[in-house]
Amino acid sequence: MLAPGCELDPDQEVVRTRPEDYFLRPPSHAPCTACGTVMTIHIVERMALVIPASNSSMRSDRNTYVGKRFVHVKNAYLDSMDEDILYHLDLGTKTHNLLAMFGDVKFVCVGGSPNRMKAFALFMHKELGLEEAEEDIKDICAGTDRYCMYKTGPVLTISHVMVIPSISIMLHELITLLHHARCYDVTIIRIGTSGGIGIAPGTVVITDIAVDSFFKPRFEQVILDNIVTRSTELDKELSEELFNCSKEIPNFPTLIGHTMCTYDFYEGQGRLDGALCSFSRDKKLDYLKRAYKAGVRNIEMESTVFTAMCGLCAAVVCVTLLNRLDCDQINLPHDVLVEYQQRPQLLISNFIRRRLGLCD
Amino acid sequence: MLAPGCELDPDQEVVRTRPEDYFLRPPSHAPCTACGTVMTIHIVERMALVIPASNSSMRSDRNTYVGKRFVHVKNAYLDSMDEDILYHLDLGTKTHNLLAMFGDVKFVCVGGSPNRMKAFALFMHKELGLEEAEEDIKDICAGTDRYCMYKTGPVLTISHVMVIPSISIMLHELITLLHHARCYDVTIIRIGTSGGIGIAPGTVVITDIAVDSFFKPRFEQVILDNIVTRSTELDKELSEELFNCSKEIPNFPTLIGHTMCTYDFYEGQGRLDGALCSFSRDKKLDYLKRAYKAGVRNIEMESTVFTAMCGLCAAVVCVTLLNRLDCDQINLPHDVLVEYQQRPQLLISNFIRRRLGLCD
Repeated sequence: MLAPGCELDPDQEVVRTRPEDYFLRPPSHAPCTACGTVMTIHIVERMALVIPASNSSMRSDRNTYVGKRFVHVKNAYLDSMDEDILYHLDLGTKTHNLLAMFGDVKFVCVGGSPNRMKAFALFMHKELGLEEAEEDIKDICAGTDRYCMYKTGPVLTISHVMVIPSISIMLHELITLLHHARCYDVTIIRIGTSGGIGIAPGTVVITDIAVDSFFKPRFEQVILDNIVTRSTELDKELSEELFNCSKEIPNFPTLIGHTMCTYDFYEGQGRLDGALCSFSRDKKLDYLKRAYKAGVRNIEMESTVFTAMCGLCAAVVCVTLLNRLDCDQINLPHDVLVEYQQRPQLLISNFIRRRLGLCD
Repeated sequence: MLAPGCELDPDQEVVRTRPEDYFLRPPSHAPCTACGTVMTIHIVERMALVIPASNSSMRSDRNTYVGKRFVHVKNAYLDSMDEDILYHLDLGTKTHNLLAMFGDVKFVCVGGSPNRMKAFALFMHKELGLEEAEEDIKDICAGTDRYCMYKTGPVLTISHVMVIPSISIMLHELITLLHHARCYDVTIIRIGTSGGIGIAPGTVVITDIAVDSFFKPRFEQVILDNIVTRSTELDKELSEELFNCSKEIPNFPTLIGHTMCTYDFYEGQGRLDGALCSFSRDKKLDYLKRAYKAGVRNIEMESTVFTAMCGLCAAVVCVTLLNRLDCDQINLPHDVLVEYQQRPQLLISNFIRRRLGLCD
């Protein structure tokens, strides 16, 4: 949220607080390089709420996990609370035995559409060869209509609805839930749909860096009336591992690239449809081409806050439904749309099965 | 999204474009008052996509509307499109007869929860004494799980899920829909839940001004890589009319006040629960007390973009579920929560019935 033209000096700008002492630090102050006006800004190098497990600890034995890396929260108040109500998930520490319900979770898969995430949970249930009857896979958050959640073995599947603040609320409550349930060695993956830039519809994009509308790898969060800028770095090894998984699937166009995350589907993504459009077709194309040149291969509305909150144990895998250099509207035949939407699910299923030693 | 400390000169800052010529203007440029650094910023006085009808035209006859004020869009490209697919509503100009389906809409009521909005549609159906069987009130957007929509006589009810970008996507498609359906003399009302500041839980707040996290009456939209700041002004007469309706309902605590709209439920609203908390209890209370002093009486996550897009024919009516000066978690008994959530519905039902001449 720096005004265009007001830039922080790259050498002076940041008090790079270590994650562990983040909340002990006061807000930092940095001058505008042009005029010296002091701005109250935090740049936190990484939130890393979920610490990555070493690959060996995950792969050595499909039933045993060694070298536990627990999910932790950065909130000194949380453990002193008599009860923690996870309001939007309709769960709580007094009303539910979170350890018994979720203690064995190793993979969390999140996505926008409730229907698509239910389909993924049923697909994972089948792929993992679990004994539980399919009818017994119920929505754990059935008491609320905000999100839905399914558990199939070590895989927790949650819908986060669309867009940044919605996924942020869900992630706050999910991470707190994993903390209360003493989960460890957890990988969190967002699977979704997106608009492509300069690539064929149906291509699966594995995100290496999530960037904002200005092509910067950052997520800006207003806290009280300070602006905190957080890193959106992802684990390169995890991206490579996913990319290698994709090579095993026939006819599966996949690439690793930057993902641009916007606060809006219409004006925020330079669309010419919608109720408001204040720019020309040329300006739109100029913007999208600059995005492509900056390394952006797809656009969606969740990746920056997701990567900022989940840190180095997270991945973003989205299929593209159109090439925004060609058009703005999604007008694929229904069967093609359904097949495209299944692609990230197929890739993540392969990945989880490999991690669990279920693939040869 | 001005950096703190970088202020626009109130006398020089703005090219106050008239709504009707907004999209013909190039982005304007304004200097930082401290250093003169030029920032590319639009300040649009009002988007006003929905023009208010005169009260007399609405009240003179319950079946006749005179002085038509059509819903219009600010998009020069829209009418030249061969087909307009309203993707997230699962509606389109070629697949649906939008004029026949929606041409008589006069009131649009939007709210976050799909279940709550369905309950409101059924309630309105009963209150308006419509002949159609209750079972025939189907979700018009059943083909998608993004939003749900019900029509009962002249009242269209839509769920917008939570938070700013989600409601913004829905509003783009809703306003375009009303435009395609040639609707006129339409009033749009958001009914929802919120956190109160310094007022008793259960109080209904009618918003006079929607403000952002810095207590400013503005909504900032990134368009391509420009930041556009839009007014969040509401119609005072409509707020007064709603307040007068509230006086007719016994035991119905209601007030008119500012509503603060944030991009987040946890850190963005100064909560001490959630996975991340980087501030102290004292800092939180200081912030909320400053909000109260600035006139804020409740906090939610949709009002600024809603008011920026719907302009002077819109109202925001939210009940408060807790007093944030006392606590952060919503822990009301279920029956109390349900009764509180019904309060905005009851008020809006009274308002619509009065406008339609169904009240004496």
